[in-house]
Amino acid sequence: MAGGRPRPARREEGSAVNDTTPEELNAVLAAAARAAAPLAALRPTERAALLRAAADALDAAAGELVPIAVAESALPEARLTGEVARSSGQLRLFADALDEGSYLEVIIDTADPDAAPVPRPDLRRMLVPLGPVLVFAASNFPFAFSVPGGDTASALAAGSPVVLKAHPGHPELSQRTGEVLADALRAAGAPDGTFAVVHGMDAGTSAITDPRIKAAAFTGSVRGGRALLDIASARPEPIPFYGELGSLNPVFVTPAAVAARGEAIADGYVASFTLGTGQFCTKPGLLFLPEGHGLEERLVSAVRSTGAAGMLNDRIRTAHAEERDRLEGLGPVRTLVHGDEVEAGVAPTLLATTAKELLADPDPLLQECFGPTSIVVSYNGPDELHAAAEAFAGNLTATVHAEDADAPTLPPLLDLLRERTGRLVYNGWPTGVAVAAAMHHGGPYPATTASVHTSVGTTAVRRFLRPVCYQNTPQALLPEALRDDNPLGLPRRINGTVTTDAL
Amino acid sequence: MAGGRPRPARREEGSAVNDTTPEELNAVLAAAARAAAPLAALRPTERAALLRAAADALDAAAGELVPIAVAESALPEARLTGEVARSSGQLRLFADALDEGSYLEVIIDTADPDAAPVPRPDLRRMLVPLGPVLVFAASNFPFAFSVPGGDTASALAAGSPVVLKAHPGHPELSQRTGEVLADALRAAGAPDGTFAVVHGMDAGTSAITDPRIKAAAFTGSVRGGRALLDIASARPEPIPFYGELGSLNPVFVTPAAVAARGEAIADGYVASFTLGTGQFCTKPGLLFLPEGHGLEERLVSAVRSTGAAGMLNDRIRTAHAEERDRLEGLGPVRTLVHGDEVEAGVAPTLLATTAKELLADPDPLLQECFGPTSIVVSYNGPDELHAAAEAFAGNLTATVHAEDADAPTLPPLLDLLRERTGRLVYNGWPTGVAVAAAMHHGGPYPATTASVHTSVGTTAVRRFLRPVCYQNTPQALLPEALRDDNPLGLPRRINGTVTTDAL
Repeated sequence: MAGGRPRPARREEGSAVNDTTPEELNAVLAAAARAAAPLAALRPTERAALLRAAADALDAAAGELVPIAVAESALPEARLTGEVARSSGQLRLFADALDEGSYLEVIIDTADPDAAPVPRPDLRRMLVPLGPVLVFAASNFPFAFSVPGGDTASALAAGSPVVLKAHPGHPELSQRTGEVLADALRAAGAPDGTFAVVHGMDAGTSAITDPRIKAAAFTGSVRGGRALLDIASARPEPIPFYGELGSLNPVFVTPAAVAARGEAIADGYVASFTLGTGQFCTKPGLLFLPEGHGLEERLVSAVRSTGAAGMLNDRIRTAHAEERDRLEGLGPVRTLVHGDEVEAGVAPTLLATTAKELLADPDPLLQECFGPTSIVVSYNGPDELHAAAEAFAGNLTATVHAEDADAPTLPPLLDLLRERTGRLVYNGWPTGVAVAAAMHHGGPYPATTASVHTSVGTTAVRRFLRPVCYQNTPQALLPEALRDDNPLGLPRRINGTVTTDAL
Repeated sequence: MAGGRPRPARREEGSAVNDTTPEELNAVLAAAARAAAPLAALRPTERAALLRAAADALDAAAGELVPIAVAESALPEARLTGEVARSSGQLRLFADALDEGSYLEVIIDTADPDAAPVPRPDLRRMLVPLGPVLVFAASNFPFAFSVPGGDTASALAAGSPVVLKAHPGHPELSQRTGEVLADALRAAGAPDGTFAVVHGMDAGTSAITDPRIKAAAFTGSVRGGRALLDIASARPEPIPFYGELGSLNPVFVTPAAVAARGEAIADGYVASFTLGTGQFCTKPGLLFLPEGHGLEERLVSAVRSTGAAGMLNDRIRTAHAEERDRLEGLGPVRTLVHGDEVEAGVAPTLLATTAKELLADPDPLLQECFGPTSIVVSYNGPDELHAAAEAFAGNLTATVHAEDADAPTLPPLLDLLRERTGRLVYNGWPTGVAVAAAMHHGGPYPATTASVHTSVGTTAVRRFLRPVCYQNTPQALLPEALRDDNPLGLPRRINGTVTTDAL
C-alpha cells in the first residue's frame, strides 16, 4: 500500500518491500468497499476512460518501470518492454469492450399477458459488478500477469475495485506500478479506493477471508492456488476463486509432420520451452514424436546452443532444480542434455522417455517442471498416442503438428485433447498468449480452478459480474442500460432479437 | 434408476422407492460418461429436437404423472398441471436457444500479422459442454425444479448428460418421470446414458465425489446445499456446484403505497406468502410497512381467511413448525395469527416486529422459515428502512411497493437491494418465476453458491459450458461452428462484429 505510515520490518521472504500491516490492510479494504458503489455507478464509457488513462500512464512510465523489472526479475529488457505494451494494450482492449457494451449482456423481455401457463411480467436483465476483487499477482510476467495484468484490467472493467497482492519476486516494481496506476485512475476521476497494492502473504490470506472481498483471482502454482481455493470456498460466504494453476502443454507431432519439417519442429520446440527460461504457464512440457523420428541430434544441438539464462528468483530456481533432478532420476527417463547452473543462470535440460513408459506409470512424469526443462516422448502409432493424450489431466493448451494428409485421422486426437484443454494450437507453439476477444486462457483443473471462465480475452470480465433482473420497474427507476430509450446505445437482446435500437 | 436388477430394501427416509445400489450407480455414471462425447457432438439443432421430444413426452404423460405428484406432494392438481406446462415450456425455451445458436458464444479473430506488440494468430472460440452433470432435485416443485426442471433442461441443452438425484419427497413421480424422459430421449436418438434418475442420499454423495461427474446443481436448504458445496469444492478435481439455497425475499412498502392501495398490498402479500403453503424459494418472508400503517386488521383477516393446506412431507412440516415456534418465541416478536396444524394441513402464521428490534439483533429474525409463516416489520422513516435493507445477506428477490411520487427518493433503497439480490420486483410479488430469457433466478450467497450464474432463463445453460479456443486450425479440422462457411448459420462475433454471414 502506498502511504506514509511507519511500517514494521516484517517482509515476505525475498521481498524488498515491507509487508502491509493489518491496520493498513484494513484501510485498503475499507476504501475498496467504499469505492464499489461509485465505481459500479459509472457508465461503461466512463470506466473505459479510466482504463485508457491507466494504459497511457503505464506506457508513459515504461522507461522508469522496465529497469526496476529487469533488476527484480532477471528477464531481458526487450521482453519486459513488450510486456508493458501488452498490458497497456489489454487495458485498452477492455476499454473497447466497455464502449461496445455487449459485455453487460442486457436481455429485455417485455410483458406478455398472453404467455402460457402464466402471464409474463416485464423482465430486464443486465450484469452488475460483484464488488471488491482480490488479485494475487504472478511472478513470471511482472507486468502482464501482475499489477497491471489481465485480472486487474478485467476486474476494473467489470466495475470492481481491485486489491492487488504483490508477488514478492518483484516488490518494488509492484509498489511503483501500483502507484502509477492508482495515481492515473485517481486523476481520471476514479473513486478513492479503486486500486491498491498490498504486500505480504499475511495480507493476502487475511484479505481473502475478509467479507469485503467478493472474488479472487490468482496465477501461480498448483499448491498455492489450491490452498487459496480451499480458503475461498470455506468462507462463511464462499466467493469465486479464479485460479490459473499448472499446465504441461503437451505437443503431439505426426510422422508426416516429422517427415515434412522435423528440424524446424525440433528448433521451434526448443525455442518455445526455453523462452523466458521456461517460465511460462504455457511452456511445452512434453513433445511426442513418432519412434525413429531421427531428431535427437538436432534437438540436443538446439538445446546445447541455447545459453543459460537467469530465473525469476532463488526460490523458483531451486524448485526447478529439484523437480528437474527428480525427473532425471526416474527409471524410464534418459537425460539428453543436463543443463548446468552457471553464473549466467540456468541452462536448459532435455529429457527423453517413451509413451510406453509414460503409460505404465504416468503420475511421476506428468508433473509441471517450471523452468527450462522438457521431455521428448517417443510413441509407437496412433493408438499409443491417443492413450498418452488420455493420460493428461486439465491443461491450458495442447498442440498438434501435422500435415494436410493427416486431416482424416486427426479428429479423434483433437477430441481427446479438447476434453482436457482450453486452447488447441495447430502447427504452432503454445507460448505467447494473444490478447484478443477470441482468446481462451483457461482449462479443466488443474489448469484452472474454474474452467467455465478465462483469464485472458474480453470475456474475462464476466468473472466479476453477476446478473440482476428488474421486474416491472418504471422507466425512472431503471438503470440507463435497461431503459426503453437506450441512452447508452447498448446492443440489447429485446424479445429475442439483438438491437441497439430504442424499445 | 430404471432397471430390472434386484434391489436391497434400503430406502432414503420417507421414500417409497429403493435406493440405487453402488453397482447401479456405477453403471449409471459409466453410461453418462460414455454418452458425453456423442451428446456433445450433436449439432445444436439436433439437441434441440431431443429437448422438444422430451417436452412432448412430458406433456403427453401429464395425465399419468400429475396424480402421482398430487399423492406424493399434497400440492393441488391445478398447480401441478401448470408446473408440467411450465417444465415442458422450459425445455422448448432451451430448444429455441439452441436453434438460435448464440449460446455457443462463437468469437473469431482472424490472423493479424501487423498486430502489436506481437502478430496475432487466427483464434476461434466457442463453448463446449463440461461433461456429466449431477442434479439434486428439489422437493417443492415436483416438476419444475425436479426431474424435468430447469437444471436438467439447461444441462441437456449444453450437451451434458444428466444424472438426477431424486428428491425423496416424490420418489415414484421421480422414477416415472425419469422413465418418460429417458424413453423419449432414447427414441429421439439421444445416446444411451444421456439421462438417468438415481435414488438415495448415498447415491447422491457418492456421485458428487465421482470423477466422472463434472458439475452439480442443487435446489434446497442452506444446510444441505452448503454440505454438498463443501464436498464438491474439496474433491481432488473440484467441480462447479450451482446451489440455490435460502432466501428471505423481503418486501418494502412506502407510505405513499400504503396510502394509495394498502389493502390490496396486504391481500397480495398474504396470497404470496401462503401460495403453495409457503413452500416457494421466493416466498416473501418479511413485509416492511411504515409505522402506523393501519393494515394489521386487514392482514390478520386475510391470513385467517386462508385455509390450512398440506405441506410437502412430514420432515418439512416439522421443520416449519420448529422454525415458526422459534420465531414466535423471540422477545421482540408478536404473534398476530398463529396457524394451527389441523387435519387439512398447516394454517398460515403471521408475526410482527419492528425494524428497531430487527436492527438490534438481526440474526435470529433473518432466518428462512420454509412454509406459511411471514413477519410484518414496521419501520420509522427511510433511514431505518435503509438500515434494515442493509441487514440482509444475499437473496433471490427483493420487492418494492411504491408510487410514482416516490421515484426521486427510491434509488438509494434500490441500490442497497440490488447489492443483495438477484431480482428486483416492483409493485408485484416475488412468487412466480417467469421462464424467459431475461429471467434471473439467483443472487449472492446464501441465495446461491454461485451468484455469477442463474438457474432459470436461457443463460442457465452457461453453467455447464466452458470455452475452448482453436488456434490456426485448418478448416477441415475445425468444428462446424467455427468454420469459415458457417454451416450452422450461427450468430458469431467476427473481428468485433456479430454476424451470421460466412467469413
